[in-house]
Amino acid sequence: MTFKVTVLGTGSARPTVSRRHSAQVLNIHEQFYLVDCGEGTQIRLLECGIPLLRLNAAFISHLHGDHVYGLFPLISSMGIMGRKTPFTVFAPAPFGEVIACHYRYFDTNLPFEVIYREVDTRSNEMIYENNVMQVWSIPLRHRVPASGYLFREKTPPLNVRKDAIERFGLGIAQITAAKRGEDIVSNDGTPIASNAEITYTPYSPRSYAYCSDTQSSGKVASIVSGVDLLYHEATFADEDRALAKETGHSTASQAARIALQAGAGKLLIGHFSSRYKDDTLLLDEARAIFADTELAEEKTTYEIPVVKNA
Amino acid sequence: MTFKVTVLGTGSARPTVSRRHSAQVLNIHEQFYLVDCGEGTQIRLLECGIPLLRLNAAFISHLHGDHVYGLFPLISSMGIMGRKTPFTVFAPAPFGEVIACHYRYFDTNLPFEVIYREVDTRSNEMIYENNVMQVWSIPLRHRVPASGYLFREKTPPLNVRKDAIERFGLGIAQITAAKRGEDIVSNDGTPIASNAEITYTPYSPRSYAYCSDTQSSGKVASIVSGVDLLYHEATFADEDRALAKETGHSTASQAARIALQAGAGKLLIGHFSSRYKDDTLLLDEARAIFADTELAEEKTTYEIPVVKNA
Repeated sequence: MTFKVTVLGTGSARPTVSRRHSAQVLNIHEQFYLVDCGEGTQIRLLECGIPLLRLNAAFISHLHGDHVYGLFPLISSMGIMGRKTPFTVFAPAPFGEVIACHYRYFDTNLPFEVIYREVDTRSNEMIYENNVMQVWSIPLRHRVPASGYLFREKTPPLNVRKDAIERFGLGIAQITAAKRGEDIVSNDGTPIASNAEITYTPYSPRSYAYCSDTQSSGKVASIVSGVDLLYHEATFADEDRALAKETGHSTASQAARIALQAGAGKLLIGHFSSRYKDDTLLLDEARAIFADTELAEEKTTYEIPVVKNA
Repeated sequence: MTFKVTVLGTGSARPTVSRRHSAQVLNIHEQFYLVDCGEGTQIRLLECGIPLLRLNAAFISHLHGDHVYGLFPLISSMGIMGRKTPFTVFAPAPFGEVIACHYRYFDTNLPFEVIYREVDTRSNEMIYENNVMQVWSIPLRHRVPASGYLFREKTPPLNVRKDAIERFGLGIAQITAAKRGEDIVSNDGTPIASNAEITYTPYSPRSYAYCSDTQSSGKVASIVSGVDLLYHEATFADEDRALAKETGHSTASQAARIALQAGAGKLLIGHFSSRYKDDTLLLDEARAIFADTELAEEKTTYEIPVVKNA
């Protein structure tokens, strides 16, 4: 029941030796998803020992080069490795045109399909679902249309409490019915026990939100309310808040205020401008507002632990 | 009078943690030129301390992603850094279309001009010249149109021998005339000394050839005849020579035979397939034919030293 994110790139438009273009990999119940894919992402994946062929899809926030330049090289390598299963790319328009343009000149014989799914950046809607999680788009405020992504684990199937099985002498069929959410009745219809008395959700569903690139937005805070782990861009420090506004970015303090407003469990900040020699400036500014803040570090995995119920 | 090449990437289509996509930087008399530009080239440049803004141009061999994927990210970063001077890209067609496609969607406000110069991959011709060197295209044999590049230092200006100045009592005007290549005559036209007697070329012009990607080609050997330093792809070992032929590549032995045939000073081999865990296999195969062979190593600079004349 894994739920973890490995950060691959924490730099902004101009990468440095230590902070590369934005990219992250989510592992949700052993299914892997890319979030953004800046230049060099495939190398970071190799360095982290994450097999390229395990990636199911990529969720791209917006069409600035530092969030997408690594995608076509990655797809190319997957082709060389003999991938057969489709790879889905969720991205704002006009990424479909970008893809079409690209494949006119490169990788004309990919052995697998690249499926493009357009993301409406004005909308907070479910864009992907499987049996264990959903992905929701988060409208962001940037210089170009941009969407963040909220990954919500689904409520796990009900379990039946051991003590209830003993107390009510439940048989297999009744246990199965209870797991389906039904109340327990005897053969002649007499109520034995309500579902709520005998079942429980084994753990609370977890969630992760990726919000980059964006200005500070109350709407974002509202959409990611209660998120366990929030990644929010913090390109600038307070002293550069005017520049943040001008370029459609956030300061570390603003990121922290969003986390506070959202009641997030924990905040990771990233997408740091290369102008700061020491990012702890940004960390301190964020922590003054939201204590449980960390600087996102590259090649580092952040796990959202399962919180088991009774 | 620098003439050196810094190797940035020595891998082939599928990069590894230790061998990245093809790219090299030439420094010829403190002018910098990129040769190929695979993914991650800008990071390698940063790691080697080579300022992006010092690059004058890029010479692209062919339109496979592992030779070009790093170009648009690099150009993007140069824009962010405020580049104003034009950047020229030499590449086979239809790279002009690739550029046009790209800038429809990205970096629509670059502060400098990207100039595209189409390279005819069927032709061995001079495609660039400045006051100290020329660049010649080298037709290669690959699965798509491909050109190698031959960088020839120009013959340096003549010097006048010190002993000749003394012996003939030459004045400034006569020394200047001699440097222009003229014979020395007295005021009344009496010959004093022939130009050949009193001048010399201070050093022999140097040359470097980049040949990747390509099958083995006698024509290439002929064009790069006498080159001081030859970089030739050696994607495969002998045991995989059938695969080399099928994919339009060379084996290490074939690269060595080209160096031998060309009378090269030294051979660097690169563009290694990721299938070989130990590249010394390739090195040994090449050295059995051409002793002065080295494996191209990333972030390593190879200097062609000046050979001074009398």
